Amino acid sequence: MTSEQLSTRAIVVRGLHNEGGWAMEDVKVRTIQDNELLVRMVASGICHTDIVFGDNAQDIGGWPRVMGHEGSGYVEKVGSKVTVAQVGDPVLLSYAACLKCQICESGHPSHCTSAGLINFVGNKAFHESSSSDANIQGSFFGQSSFANLSVVNETSVVNAKHLIKSEEELKMFSPLGCGIQTGSGTIYNVAGAKPEDTVAIMGLGGVGLSGIMATKICGCKTIIGIDRVQSRLDLAKELGATHVINTSDVPDLVKAVQDLTEGYGTSITMDTTGLLALIKAGLEFTRIKGQYIQVGTTPPDAKLEIEVFKFMVAGKRFIGAVEGDVIPSEYLPKMIQWYRDGKFPVNRLIEYFKAEDFMKGIKAMESGGTIKPIILW
Amino acid sequence: MTSEQLSTRAIVVRGLHNEGGWAMEDVKVRTIQDNELLVRMVASGICHTDIVFGDNAQDIGGWPRVMGHEGSGYVEKVGSKVTVAQVGDPVLLSYAACLKCQICESGHPSHCTSAGLINFVGNKAFHESSSSDANIQGSFFGQSSFANLSVVNETSVVNAKHLIKSEEELKMFSPLGCGIQTGSGTIYNVAGAKPEDTVAIMGLGGVGLSGIMATKICGCKTIIGIDRVQSRLDLAKELGATHVINTSDVPDLVKAVQDLTEGYGTSITMDTTGLLALIKAGLEFTRIKGQYIQVGTTPPDAKLEIEVFKFMVAGKRFIGAVEGDVIPSEYLPKMIQWYRDGKFPVNRLIEYFKAEDFMKGIKAMESGGTIKPIILW
Repeated sequence: MTSEQLSTRAIVVRGLHNEGGWAMEDVKVRTIQDNELLVRMVASGICHTDIVFGDNAQDIGGWPRVMGHEGSGYVEKVGSKVTVAQVGDPVLLSYAACLKCQICESGHPSHCTSAGLINFVGNKAFHESSSSDANIQGSFFGQSSFANLSVVNETSVVNAKHLIKSEEELKMFSPLGCGIQTGSGTIYNVAGAKPEDTVAIMGLGGVGLSGIMATKICGCKTIIGIDRVQSRLDLAKELGATHVINTSDVPDLVKAVQDLTEGYGTSITMDTTGLLALIKAGLEFTRIKGQYIQVGTTPPDAKLEIEVFKFMVAGKRFIGAVEGDVIPSEYLPKMIQWYRDGKFPVNRLIEYFKAEDFMKGIKAMESGGTIKPIILW
Repeated sequence: MTSEQLSTRAIVVRGLHNEGGWAMEDVKVRTIQDNELLVRMVASGICHTDIVFGDNAQDIGGWPRVMGHEGSGYVEKVGSKVTVAQVGDPVLLSYAACLKCQICESGHPSHCTSAGLINFVGNKAFHESSSSDANIQGSFFGQSSFANLSVVNETSVVNAKHLIKSEEELKMFSPLGCGIQTGSGTIYNVAGAKPEDTVAIMGLGGVGLSGIMATKICGCKTIIGIDRVQSRLDLAKELGATHVINTSDVPDLVKAVQDLTEGYGTSITMDTTGLLALIKAGLEFTRIKGQYIQVGTTPPDAKLEIEVFKFMVAGKRFIGAVEGDVIPSEYLPKMIQWYRDGKFPVNRLIEYFKAEDFMKGIKAMESGGTIKPIILW
């Protein structure tokens, strides 16, 4: 350890979250590199992706590691080559990308060819305070924001100096850079929703409800929210859904959606659940010439069978999308403007928890009672 | 029979084409309805779709029937409500559509909700000359152009009065309204190909080669033609392909395409073969964020398995398209202008046959020796 190493609290994952495998620990942060920043987090949203990849870390390099990818905070130090922010600047964090590959250069950094390596496998970013030599893996989405102090990849940083009006906003906006841009960006950016569109959104968590808000902004004539938790369906209606379907109540989801769309089905369908039965139904009820967009993570081995001729004649589009295919530095200001205009009430989605109560936040999300838990450092 | 019924020659399908089931017969044409025209064909392209659906007519209402859907000719009579053309006008024929459903109204008549019924099942349009009462099914793609005189649906008609300069052009342009608009329209209209695109086209018949010509018009930097017939690969190079791959020569098509595209794969892939093995390879070698577009007809029961998570993270797009998703009255003039500008040499694709030699044309197409046979009446 060098003298530069600072101590911090972090939620270290050493096992399954439901078996006590996630715990707040005192750890040390490694020295930042030229293209990194040290950020003192004020907040971090909790997302299902943290849980899925934290619990199943064998796929991305194993335990121990620090999750968290919806962070916000203030810059404490900057590497020598960092230009995005200066010490003291407030920052909102998002995914990281190489910014050099053909995909990044074509304007789609969320699909960077190195996305898996950079965002999921990450880097060593923490050192245990114990005598053990094992490093704790960090840099999840270039940030590992489930730590009070964390090493952040420059490409994950959106400088919020001219975007936010208060520290309260810095907290509230922490999930903009992942779940909320994913849901709204998929509708606004990937689908390019228009007033004539009929839209179905399956799964009304933070991603799905952000999609609902975006469909309303786009003025879509029919907006169908689909979930099995009544409180989420109720909130979807308040946020803009013209219709909701409780999957617990309908024996035939395809017919239920067709009945709401003059028999045609939806011109845009977004799935945030990753459940194969819903994916199949969604692709089926997507209209001729409609776009079906997969956003929810399925199990890695999930396979969808497509009847090619029928699909071709229908002119459908089956589309994969990550992070709404947005460039955060361009898209976050847009969402914040929508919020200021009263069209994007992200405040309706969030609930704060103290960082040490992170398990309460996770449980609240899993029960469906809280849409977007945010832990505060 | 009424006094209005006119005699004509038509290729009547009463069995499989390879078993002598297709024959030139003298038949009578039924009276046109208010929204129909009587057209004296001068030419008709032959397409694989004629063969597939002629031989397998049980799926669309059985034999006897008259195929043909790339016709051109002169108007002999017009129904009382027809406005698209007058008696004597030259016309180029395309697919038919209802023009009333939500899909047609949204500008995508090739995916009309009634497309199957209107274009494939068709209508009674011919009466046998024999004493039998059985009607011969017609109106294939609203035209059944494998008849010298045929009843044509108004929606299939593009008035060519101000488009063509000679009867020679009327003959040469007959396939524009199907195979050639399908291949070029998919690249130009569905994919919206740009200079930075890397494109692979699988299957270099009339559709595939029309796609090659369109990629060149779009200025795509890499254009890969894929087939197993060397003469077609050679022609593809002459028409604009920057690279060709003979599938007979390469053990690993995915790798062969990646090797030509800096390892990334293609940003646009179009399959015109309908062969499942090629479809799987094509979807695999399609680049991250790339568009894979299915154009070739697969067997009706062909199913493609998609690994959902991998597909989603890659941000790929699996797209079905029919007829290039073009509106023929708008797109045919564009192709003709490209032809006049020397950028769209459709003359390189065609070979004429006398109508009575239609089986020679079919055989020439099946052997790969002729790209687009056109029968002349």
